[in-house]
Amino acid sequence: MTNSATNLRLKLPIACIILEVIIIILFGTLVQYDDETDAKLWHKEIANGSSNYDNNFYYRYPSFQDVHVMIFIGFGFLMTFLQRYGFSSVGFNFLIAAFALQWATLMQGFVHGMHGGKIHVGIESMINADFCTGSVLISFGAVLGKTSPVQLLVMSVIEVTLFAINEFIVLSVLGAKDAGGSMTIHTFGAYFGLMVARVLYRPNLDKSKHKNCSVYHSDLFAMIGTIYLWMFWPSFNSAVTAHGDDQHRTAMNTYYSLAACTLATYGLSAVVAHDGKLDMVHIQNAALAGGVAVGTAGEMMLTPFGSMIVGFLAGTVSVLGFKFLSPILEQKLKIQDTCGVHNLHGMPGVLGAIVGAVTAALATKDVYGDGMADVFPDIHSGDVEASFQGVRQAISLAVTLGIALLGGLITGFILKLPIYGAPPDTICFEDGIYWELPGEEGSQEELTTVRTPDEAEKLNA
Amino acid sequence: MTNSATNLRLKLPIACIILEVIIIILFGTLVQYDDETDAKLWHKEIANGSSNYDNNFYYRYPSFQDVHVMIFIGFGFLMTFLQRYGFSSVGFNFLIAAFALQWATLMQGFVHGMHGGKIHVGIESMINADFCTGSVLISFGAVLGKTSPVQLLVMSVIEVTLFAINEFIVLSVLGAKDAGGSMTIHTFGAYFGLMVARVLYRPNLDKSKHKNCSVYHSDLFAMIGTIYLWMFWPSFNSAVTAHGDDQHRTAMNTYYSLAACTLATYGLSAVVAHDGKLDMVHIQNAALAGGVAVGTAGEMMLTPFGSMIVGFLAGTVSVLGFKFLSPILEQKLKIQDTCGVHNLHGMPGVLGAIVGAVTAALATKDVYGDGMADVFPDIHSGDVEASFQGVRQAISLAVTLGIALLGGLITGFILKLPIYGAPPDTICFEDGIYWELPGEEGSQEELTTVRTPDEAEKLNA
Amino acid sequence: MTNSATNLRLKLPIACIILEVIIIILFGTLVQYDDETDAKLWHKEIANGSSNYDNNFYYRYPSFQDVHVMIFIGFGFLMTFLQRYGFSSVGFNFLIAAFALQWATLMQGFVHGMHGGKIHVGIESMINADFCTGSVLISFGAVLGKTSPVQLLVMSVIEVTLFAINEFIVLSVLGAKDAGGSMTIHTFGAYFGLMVARVLYRPNLDKSKHKNCSVYHSDLFAMIGTIYLWMFWPSFNSAVTAHGDDQHRTAMNTYYSLAACTLATYGLSAVVAHDGKLDMVHIQNAALAGGVAVGTAGEMMLTPFGSMIVGFLAGTVSVLGFKFLSPILEQKLKIQDTCGVHNLHGMPGVLGAIVGAVTAALATKDVYGDGMADVFPDIHSGDVEASFQGVRQAISLAVTLGIALLGGLITGFILKLPIYGAPPDTICFEDGIYWELPGEEGSQEELTTVRTPDEAEKLNA
Repeated sequence: MTNSATNLRLKLPIACIILEVIIIILFGTLVQYDDETDAKLWHKEIANGSSNYDNNFYYRYPSFQDVHVMIFIGFGFLMTFLQRYGFSSVGFNFLIAAFALQWATLMQGFVHGMHGGKIHVGIESMINADFCTGSVLISFGAVLGKTSPVQLLVMSVIEVTLFAINEFIVLSVLGAKDAGGSMTIHTFGAYFGLMVARVLYRPNLDKSKHKNCSVYHSDLFAMIGTIYLWMFWPSFNSAVTAHGDDQHRTAMNTYYSLAACTLATYGLSAVVAHDGKLDMVHIQNAALAGGVAVGTAGEMMLTPFGSMIVGFLAGTVSVLGFKFLSPILEQKLKIQDTCGVHNLHGMPGVLGAIVGAVTAALATKDVYGDGMADVFPDIHSGDVEASFQGVRQAISLAVTLGIALLGGLITGFILKLPIYGAPPDTICFEDGIYWELPGEEGSQEELTTVRTPDEAEKLNA
Repeated sequence: MTNSATNLRLKLPIACIILEVIIIILFGTLVQYDDETDAKLWHKEIANGSSNYDNNFYYRYPSFQDVHVMIFIGFGFLMTFLQRYGFSSVGFNFLIAAFALQWATLMQGFVHGMHGGKIHVGIESMINADFCTGSVLISFGAVLGKTSPVQLLVMSVIEVTLFAINEFIVLSVLGAKDAGGSMTIHTFGAYFGLMVARVLYRPNLDKSKHKNCSVYHSDLFAMIGTIYLWMFWPSFNSAVTAHGDDQHRTAMNTYYSLAACTLATYGLSAVVAHDGKLDMVHIQNAALAGGVAVGTAGEMMLTPFGSMIVGFLAGTVSVLGFKFLSPILEQKLKIQDTCGVHNLHGMPGVLGAIVGAVTAALATKDVYGDGMADVFPDIHSGDVEASFQGVRQAISLAVTLGIALLGGLITGFILKLPIYGAPPDTICFEDGIYWELPGEEGSQEELTTVRTPDEAEKLNA
Repeated sequence: MTNSATNLRLKLPIACIILEVIIIILFGTLVQYDDETDAKLWHKEIANGSSNYDNNFYYRYPSFQDVHVMIFIGFGFLMTFLQRYGFSSVGFNFLIAAFALQWATLMQGFVHGMHGGKIHVGIESMINADFCTGSVLISFGAVLGKTSPVQLLVMSVIEVTLFAINEFIVLSVLGAKDAGGSMTIHTFGAYFGLMVARVLYRPNLDKSKHKNCSVYHSDLFAMIGTIYLWMFWPSFNSAVTAHGDDQHRTAMNTYYSLAACTLATYGLSAVVAHDGKLDMVHIQNAALAGGVAVGTAGEMMLTPFGSMIVGFLAGTVSVLGFKFLSPILEQKLKIQDTCGVHNLHGMPGVLGAIVGAVTAALATKDVYGDGMADVFPDIHSGDVEASFQGVRQAISLAVTLGIALLGGLITGFILKLPIYGAPPDTICFEDGIYWELPGEEGSQEELTTVRTPDEAEKLNA
């Protein structure tokens, strides 16, 4: 499977090393410890009466580590369902995540405000960088198996930049709330990736069709990813919400939403799948839609009851999407969405944005009390009415969709240039094109080595 | 492998959706945020001088997430050891856990006391719901491979309810201590499940015997479950103990118990297994018995020394159980215990209850100081003598065994009704009956495709 | 594969049970709860005004659990890359880690100071025991596949003891800083293990050569180990640093170092590997070198910029080591380093020690402020100059190398005694020698069972 066009000996090292050198130079020029990671500054705060447990590290680090697991294990293994693309799924996920989190630190630092010309970093910037990375990995899911790692790095450069701009518009300009990223992470990542997939449409992809499916153990590896995403989604949605009741409530709303979503997914899967059997694709993906769909409203007073209804709807929409919408997307709209990110992140993300807008519009002082200051500071301060907050949320969804689709379009055309070592149609979904694969000799398979009749006859003779 | 009796197209959706709708209605009617998750109420506490780090979320959420991993990854993957039952092991574990944690929130809320007609939820109710779920998953281990997901959901409905009642009697009526659930979780789950397995006895199960064993990689997947259970057991046992020294001590006692248990397990396994080789079944299961056996006494002043002795005994009992007792259970008592839950949860749970009773009976003010108020509030207040606390612990074990066995008996007969799509004797331990399996075409196995001599000759011609 | 010399029926039980009994007796005699785990003593502190959130448990337990995952899942699964050594990789890792953490508690307690003749244990002793265990597991990597579990236990007894002595000299006598263990853990473990591997050199190891490689799914299992080590390394390096900014900064420096290291690893791997393809060995190992290389300097004011440069260098050195140095080590120096620990832990550990010495020598009051007291107490108190701290760091590296090499030499000769059931040259890297393997009958492989032409003809007839 050697092919000069897909040979990465020069392309990948150039991409990796140039990007890393640029990052290191920018970090050297621009990045500083924030007050809570700097030895001198934190000890000044200590001298002024702070205690070490006031350090934001202790409020956020456990959540950060859960998010980190979702990014590297969750997304990475979720995509190992393909029979011969496990090295690339985990491996390229690892590469682009390690790149994107650095780039995101810079881009988010630029747009969210510098401090005296410097970007300040600490546990919250680490979480936000991981969040932005998540968005890139969602887009990766749409183009999985059809792109080279160089293409993925180029995509990451652009997507992270646009993510930071969109996030700034949504959260800072429009004043919307989106702690778990139904809009900024899931909707953005999904529609960006779907548009890239549209531009990179391969009419002859069915030449690799026999590899675009799972085997028994690859589906089990994928379940590692699914379960980790499912378990730690409460940490994802609550990682950057305000301290205290906000983190507590967000984690709990997400927990209930996911549980209800899972029941809906199993129920619906048995209805729509072949022969009344369960379909692993639904379980691996749709059961997670409940986490996506409370990404915006999770920090609000959605109540466990509301969370469960949202989760139930999200699971339902997601399974039906896999069954009925994905084939249409592929055949009519020419979007080959390898992992079905439209069903897991796209539609549930839009649902989450709508739920967030409605929940925000219904916010009352009576329900939130002084907690209004944390969840909706502008309503609390009297700057806006709750109904207008709902409008801002809705506008944010539209902006996010617009930037994602336009950005994906442009990125798709850039990635179409024939210089990145993309795989030919005949060897998509195949690790062998980019990875040295272990020889089959001496392997377990040897135990069932097949001999031609001639060889076998000689042995029997 | 299609069979109208086991077809789930109607049965599973009806079960999932009816149950979820009931749950959502009950949550809508009865469930409220507690003081620490409600925006208004928590901010009242803040106004009264609390700090955000007083919010119980920060004391318990890391433990909760570890428990969550044990429930979904630990139990789920531990059961993937069967060669062709990995989808069901992880997948049904996922389904019934997602259901049980919701149902448990309601049932535990009902019996443990409502607040003005409402169930209050927060991080502790989440942990307790996961604990109850663990008990159901233990029972699942006993019937693994022989039950349909509908049966498992029905079992969960009943078992969760009885769990909550038993837990209430043990902890609130009898005043016993059982933070890590040697009695309420492990003993209860094991004997409930064993009784269900007894009633569901299949005399002709040996027709599926060739599937009731592992293959090389399925044993490795199972080790993921084992190691996660082992690592996070300190969090399990300490998750709901009192803040401060209690959580700290419980985690540490469990850590030492498990370490000693592991050495005992390896030593004994080599003694009793075939040819002086180690048996994966022992390593996967018996090495965990040390966590079960300090589930009651872990929060007490058991000392590392005491914890190690208990762990060592638990590992020993567990390996010997797998070797000598399991065959007897199956042949004489007609209990087909797929995962050997009697050895991992049953006997070590009883051992843990006894250790707890003895340790409680030996409690002195001299050793516990003011810490007595956290561990044994009734002894501290002078309401009972330490020796009587020991008696209450022992009675709790008896009550737990009684409710588990009786509950399992009744549940077994309910599950025996021929309406749930249970698998026939010939296709137990087989995913294909409930799951769409990936085709083998185009798979890795293709690389070693076997041809008949005729085909091969044509190719050679 | 039964062989009386490698039969463990007596050897392993004797080793496990004698060691565990000794440990239990020593724990019974010497080990006590510390002030924060003892009910009476902690409640005295509460009475004196402490709050429960002052208990060190809440500062350190999340980090401990991450470290615990690295030790048992990270190291365990990283070594499952071998095609038929997964049971042993995870299983012996489990055994020797469970032993070593107990033994380390005792040895570190002895040398780091007893309290009134007693060893005090709490969350920090648990982390330190896990750290020491990590060192043993690094050495295990060098001899993987060529040693019996009894040899590994004997190695652990000696290595843990020497680790504790070296750690005491480096940290307490020489006053060096090494929170993440570039020297005490990685350099020590690597060179100790390499020297053991040298003494145990097997000239005829190529008889097992066909088993000393991976298969497709074994490489995916290994990636579970890699990714967990990568994700949780920030917790590893920060687990025992001072509260507040120190933990926060150390975690963040490590995060950036690893990200930069990963980009370097992918870039370099494509350069040096065959045909411009990526090599899984590099990804699985070299991408982690960035964590090793900031093990000493991570807690210092290294800056994200400095951390990235160090990580980038570490990844580069590690990939080049795998490509060019490992063959030389094997052919010229007769060191058969199964996992390439010299490239992942050896050279990056030495690099980390040097970076630590330089960073320490450059420390100024201007940069550290009052935080100097946490990072370099002796500089803060005026006892030493920063430059001298650098010298102490450098001397510590030399001492560590000396003790590791000498200790490994002696240990190697002890392990060479023909009494431990070591595998013969022909069946190294093979689980079957120490484990009951699942039968292949009834397995997935059955689906592709090979028939001889005779059999097939009968079937076709």
